[in-house]
Amino acid sequence: MMKEQLQVPGFKAGAVKAGIRGKDRLDVGLIYSSTPANAAAVFTTSQVKAAPVLLDMEHLQGGKAQAIFVNSGIANACTGKDGMRLARGTAALVARELGIAEQLVQVSSTGVIGQPLDLTFFEKCMGPLAESLTETGFDKVSQAIMTTDTVSKTSRRTLVLSGKEVTVLGMAKGAGMIMPNMATMLCFIVTDAMIASDVLQQMLLQSVEPSFNSITVDGDTSTNDTVLLLAGGEAGNDKIVSSASEDALAFQQCLDELCLDLALQIVKDGEGATKLVTIHVTGAPGDTEADRAARTIANSSLVKTAFFGEDANWGRIIAALGRAGFVFDESLVDIFFDDVAMVLDGLGLGAEQEKLATRVLKQDNFTITVDLKSGNSERKIYTCDLSIDYIKINADYRT
Amino acid sequence: MMKEQLQVPGFKAGAVKAGIRGKDRLDVGLIYSSTPANAAAVFTTSQVKAAPVLLDMEHLQGGKAQAIFVNSGIANACTGKDGMRLARGTAALVARELGIAEQLVQVSSTGVIGQPLDLTFFEKCMGPLAESLTETGFDKVSQAIMTTDTVSKTSRRTLVLSGKEVTVLGMAKGAGMIMPNMATMLCFIVTDAMIASDVLQQMLLQSVEPSFNSITVDGDTSTNDTVLLLAGGEAGNDKIVSSASEDALAFQQCLDELCLDLALQIVKDGEGATKLVTIHVTGAPGDTEADRAARTIANSSLVKTAFFGEDANWGRIIAALGRAGFVFDESLVDIFFDDVAMVLDGLGLGAEQEKLATRVLKQDNFTITVDLKSGNSERKIYTCDLSIDYIKINADYRT
Repeated sequence: MMKEQLQVPGFKAGAVKAGIRGKDRLDVGLIYSSTPANAAAVFTTSQVKAAPVLLDMEHLQGGKAQAIFVNSGIANACTGKDGMRLARGTAALVARELGIAEQLVQVSSTGVIGQPLDLTFFEKCMGPLAESLTETGFDKVSQAIMTTDTVSKTSRRTLVLSGKEVTVLGMAKGAGMIMPNMATMLCFIVTDAMIASDVLQQMLLQSVEPSFNSITVDGDTSTNDTVLLLAGGEAGNDKIVSSASEDALAFQQCLDELCLDLALQIVKDGEGATKLVTIHVTGAPGDTEADRAARTIANSSLVKTAFFGEDANWGRIIAALGRAGFVFDESLVDIFFDDVAMVLDGLGLGAEQEKLATRVLKQDNFTITVDLKSGNSERKIYTCDLSIDYIKINADYRT
Repeated sequence: MMKEQLQVPGFKAGAVKAGIRGKDRLDVGLIYSSTPANAAAVFTTSQVKAAPVLLDMEHLQGGKAQAIFVNSGIANACTGKDGMRLARGTAALVARELGIAEQLVQVSSTGVIGQPLDLTFFEKCMGPLAESLTETGFDKVSQAIMTTDTVSKTSRRTLVLSGKEVTVLGMAKGAGMIMPNMATMLCFIVTDAMIASDVLQQMLLQSVEPSFNSITVDGDTSTNDTVLLLAGGEAGNDKIVSSASEDALAFQQCLDELCLDLALQIVKDGEGATKLVTIHVTGAPGDTEADRAARTIANSSLVKTAFFGEDANWGRIIAALGRAGFVFDESLVDIFFDDVAMVLDGLGLGAEQEKLATRVLKQDNFTITVDLKSGNSERKIYTCDLSIDYIKINADYRT
């Protein structure tokens, strides 16, 4: 994607080096809307929420936001009252620098859990950061939020609403559902569409379910996970006030695609990952069962190491299914590796099929379909393999 | 432990090479009681149960067993009707060879899931296997059941019941709660104590909870997990008919110790494991919460790789806690690495304590205590670190 494409009317962005992560890394970023934007957000479900998450939830009660400040290096999670003071102090600095209300500032942090940070770091960088704001600065922000990410992750869509061209631009970081050392998946999406806050929130919830809530790298949930969506309205489309309208459906589809695109970029860049694997459970008796089955398979260390070893070991898949926590008839289960049948009615099909399945496993990207033939519910979860590099990254990160 | 100690009056054992796992490995074993023993058992909770598990459950309805046949190499799980025929056929062969009722034969299998095996393998070996039975053959059986195990696992205790010396001998295999390729944790325990079947079953359930049900290597549950306990009665003690008697309490304590000893041997020999770690959650509001908290920490890939990296990264522990599925107050949480306090009231204690904690992590064996200070429930779960060798073992095993 060309850098110059990464812009949305009404928004500016920028990033600088605050020195949190050494001298030579962009580690703070800022996104600014020329007017208070309608805002929606989804935050971590963890019982342990980072200070900036708690602050953002409070600030978003008005349904508006005008700036997003983000730092990498420290997560500002498990930092108690000092952490809350740091988050509030940061929002105040941003508000003063930009001349907007504190309530309109969202703060995000990603990095090591439990480490304190002095507000002076942000005091010093805030002037240069505001000066760095340009219409094409989103690329820099997407770099400033990287931790163990090996590539920056952006996605852009355009669509026409009531005759006006509308742009949706998203960026995300994360190489795991959680990497508590550098905690979090973060995602910021901005659009110039005019959409009421409550509709925006509804839309975001709907998009997040089959995208960010359907990926796993290591089965963990971070303390800082955040998806923020700001709609500035610069496009001048007729304001979307109902999620049932034609424009709303068009925007929803666009948002769905963009979120899934970013979510899959995260899994592909999962720590140590060499393969993107879709676990598709079909024929489940209910949605809960479909979800449990898909998640249990997608999170099994043994299934994931078999993917890494390119070993068509379906026994590990059916064993994971066996502990997924619901009753099913194993003699009905079919398992496919892409289009290759490996198991029919609970029984393996032998060496010839295994050869074909092994070829599927050698691809960078494939789908395991598990058909329980016990109902109509289905669920897709996107996962990656578990490799030696995952261990190296996570054993060596801090030391 | 000296080989000659591994014997129990009234029992014989033996093992031979049936050729399932190549020419040079013991892969079938037999344990024989001179009289029908009172028997108790605990089997996998997986929805997918291997054929021998289903057969054993049926055979144990009478509360008696006289022989245990075991093979490694194939798990006989997910093998449908053919698998059930193989298990039944094996029991029939054992019964004929030993001149006992089929109902008194327990069959156990451990190995690759989904692979068929011809009964002729067992027909050929059954004669030599029965001939191999000796009073000192338990050591050989403990070797015949090894898969990715690097050491054989046995434990022996003696105690005096109503003036008679009683021996309890156990052996186990398993380098993970599950390794579906070679599925299972197996454990066989024999004693010459005289104990009624129903009391025996009660006792076994009690011993299994804080031992085998409190360990994890990779968070999975196998299709073949089995713990079998046979009480032959040769010791001539007054028969234990109530679990409340003094003798029952003495035997229970002995059985508890033996099961925990074997369980910890399994974790220590966990695939790729270099450290045995006790996760001790205290001050939980209830037993369910204590169990969830301890298990979530003990199964977190990120916590386990930090142990491998000897990184005193308590943020990963508290993040795991955050997704354990119950509400708690993070500002109350204390975390200790052995006796070293790392977190008090939810806040990290800084670099000096981290240095001390890192020293703890360099040990082969340590305890992480997490005090929620929200109640009186506690739970210990025994786990190991997640190492590069785990990935190598599980990516390369079959290929």
